[in-house]
Amino acid sequence: MSLRLHAPVVLPCDPTCSVLRDAVVDVVDGRITYVGEAASAPAFDGEVRSLSGILLPGLVNTHAHSPMTVLRGLGSDLPLLRWLQEHMWPNEARMTAADIGTGMLLGAVEMLRHGVTTSAEMYFHGPELVSSVLAAGSRVVFGGAILDVPGMSWRSQTDEISSWIDADGLVSGPGGRVELAYGPHSAYTLSPAQLTEIAAEARERGALLMVHVAESPFEDEAQRAEHGSVPALLKAADVLGGRVLSAHSVHLSDDDIALYASFGVGVAHCPGSNMKLASGIARVPEMLAAGIAVGLGTDGPASNDDLDLFEEARLAGLLARVSTMDATVLGAAQALLMATRGGAAALGRDDIGALEAGRWADVVHVDVDDPAFATGVDAPDSQLLANLVWASGARRVTDVWVAGDHVVAGGESTRVDRREAQAGVTAVAARLRSA
Amino acid sequence: MSLRLHAPVVLPCDPTCSVLRDAVVDVVDGRITYVGEAASAPAFDGEVRSLSGILLPGLVNTHAHSPMTVLRGLGSDLPLLRWLQEHMWPNEARMTAADIGTGMLLGAVEMLRHGVTTSAEMYFHGPELVSSVLAAGSRVVFGGAILDVPGMSWRSQTDEISSWIDADGLVSGPGGRVELAYGPHSAYTLSPAQLTEIAAEARERGALLMVHVAESPFEDEAQRAEHGSVPALLKAADVLGGRVLSAHSVHLSDDDIALYASFGVGVAHCPGSNMKLASGIARVPEMLAAGIAVGLGTDGPASNDDLDLFEEARLAGLLARVSTMDATVLGAAQALLMATRGGAAALGRDDIGALEAGRWADVVHVDVDDPAFATGVDAPDSQLLANLVWASGARRVTDVWVAGDHVVAGGESTRVDRREAQAGVTAVAARLRSA
Ligand SMILES: [Zn+2]
Ligand SMILES: [Zn+2]
Repeated sequence: MSLRLHAPVVLPCDPTCSVLRDAVVDVVDGRITYVGEAASAPAFDGEVRSLSGILLPGLVNTHAHSPMTVLRGLGSDLPLLRWLQEHMWPNEARMTAADIGTGMLLGAVEMLRHGVTTSAEMYFHGPELVSSVLAAGSRVVFGGAILDVPGMSWRSQTDEISSWIDADGLVSGPGGRVELAYGPHSAYTLSPAQLTEIAAEARERGALLMVHVAESPFEDEAQRAEHGSVPALLKAADVLGGRVLSAHSVHLSDDDIALYASFGVGVAHCPGSNMKLASGIARVPEMLAAGIAVGLGTDGPASNDDLDLFEEARLAGLLARVSTMDATVLGAAQALLMATRGGAAALGRDDIGALEAGRWADVVHVDVDDPAFATGVDAPDSQLLANLVWASGARRVTDVWVAGDHVVAGGESTRVDRREAQAGVTAVAARLRSA
Repeated sequence: MSLRLHAPVVLPCDPTCSVLRDAVVDVVDGRITYVGEAASAPAFDGEVRSLSGILLPGLVNTHAHSPMTVLRGLGSDLPLLRWLQEHMWPNEARMTAADIGTGMLLGAVEMLRHGVTTSAEMYFHGPELVSSVLAAGSRVVFGGAILDVPGMSWRSQTDEISSWIDADGLVSGPGGRVELAYGPHSAYTLSPAQLTEIAAEARERGALLMVHVAESPFEDEAQRAEHGSVPALLKAADVLGGRVLSAHSVHLSDDDIALYASFGVGVAHCPGSNMKLASGIARVPEMLAAGIAVGLGTDGPASNDDLDLFEEARLAGLLARVSTMDATVLGAAQALLMATRGGAAALGRDDIGALEAGRWADVVHVDVDDPAFATGVDAPDSQLLANLVWASGARRVTDVWVAGDHVVAGGESTRVDRREAQAGVTAVAARLRSA
């Protein structure tokens, strides 16, 4: 299958955030073979599709619990602990594997409409979750959640992922859409010795390990008291060194940041969730300056409350600026790179997150028929990037391709009936409420 | 003209943020005559329109410079002063009255599509600005900008507003769409004596006075050094006492807040602009606790960069929570009230901002056919409000009425060709760039 996408603007999300004018993206068998100006493009034999707006790589959501679409908005203005204890945990305990599939299906459809083609999911019931992602035509890094709490067995949760990887391989599915990973929940729901074992199994398989770190000021007080910090605990437990994604990572010291930089730990920054849950302000400018790969995450739709990574890019910029009182720390280009290339790097992936020959053809088209772009598609590069990141956001995403497959057209999924997906969630939410 | 709007959910934005189910809004001659449950509604003789989603009052944008749509995104990642000196001021100096009409037309159309039916505009060239608002069918409080800077005459700017009010009345236009006001820019572009005179003219006419106060930490240093604070200066200059809207008001002391509360000063909180320009974090929870009427403002689209007040409501909640580290300080209901009823109160208006018999029928319909509402329209009140404020935002605004006129249908203006309005801005932006 050969496809050429041709548009007035292409944002490859290379390290300098170039803006290409009148450019093409060539796709063969799901992979990008060429990106560049149309005038200097090689001869191409295949379908050519002309688009009127901006092409950019699919966004990479580095931290999500998307099946929680079935709990969206529940108890959302309560204090964190009451919200968890009275609403989240009791409902999650009642959610079946099928419910998780239902929640993930809508989540995947919603993300694709917002231009998010990959999400890193820490959750339960992997087979149902993954099958919904595949039904929507999206891409996932599934990190099976692992907790040592009553009613759960961290050992069997770990074994489950290990044997799944051993059976199917680390990466599987059409277009390499499924990557399996380990999701040890946190250093306060698992002991250091347990974390050590999980990390060893992940490293052995070259798998990503995703873990919540220092999200709120209080959750991991005991661990911080004993080890100085959660990153220090992770280092002591020999968790660092392989592919590690540290979610949230709000309350980090200079030493923690240096440690993460030296071990190549990626960070999933979740500004919307951190603000709404009053968790705190992550030190993103310092992390970026230290060379840490920082991506963006929505966190679960019950805390955020949407799955819109353009919104997170905007929030990341706004929050970094106001918290440092410096209007130059995180510009539109850097915010966009965090949502794409940076997110891929944080996951330890170099095959998504940019329009670059060799990577998967995960491509998003943003229409410019919107007041946000009225200053003109021929505006200077910096202005066009500002229009996209600060003004239009996801509103005008019309088309999305994943591994070259056209999975969103005219703003709607080509694979899933969105209304049916919504109705599925409505039914689950109603059942959970009446329980 | 008689119209009944009937929907499964009506949010009147009364002080407790009630959620009415299966309810109607009756409109006669542009004014609301009844709001309540359909079952107990009075007999109605007129057109009945059934809607499938949520009805709420049109949002009130309490601080904007909307004609700056023609400058959107320009130099947006530079430090504040370079952004002003290199991009904003030189371009604004080149903008003609017609350019301002062109910019405002798109701004009004954009705001209406986002459910904003009223904006308070501090800008120049009132006749052209107001005529664009009327063409779009929107509503405006036009505060003619007044500055004592080279090339401008504060005296003639003041006289212009006074004689306009004396000729046309404070409120004019179909459906009372136009209110005139005074827009003394700030205490650092006008002397205390000038502010005293302007305030006297406003008070004499019962007019609103809108002024920028304590936006950034540095802009009004000289005034703060002399008078302790800008609010103290305003009091000393006898500016307080009439209808006063204090925009931004980021850097206020406890005394300033008490002063504002005692004089009934309204505040236009602009979280998006304050974050993006690194101006600081306004003390909104303290202001609300003191009983100050706090509304929301987008500020100009060159600094924000959109005119989406739902987004400001969300940002207001997120910023208040993370800055106080308290997830309960500003919930969905309060954020929504700030965007509607609170904004009207901040402007000193009791005829807009709520669905209430006697007020103008400025009404917005939000469709619930969206993942944001998949947990169900019959979800508990708090969940539905969370879905609207934290998740859906303006994305699903389909219909808007202003003074009972149907000005947006199917998400598009019924009065203005949006693409022509965009093209108008494109031409102005191109001309300004090439100058
Ligand atoms: Zn999480
Ligand atoms: Zn302003």
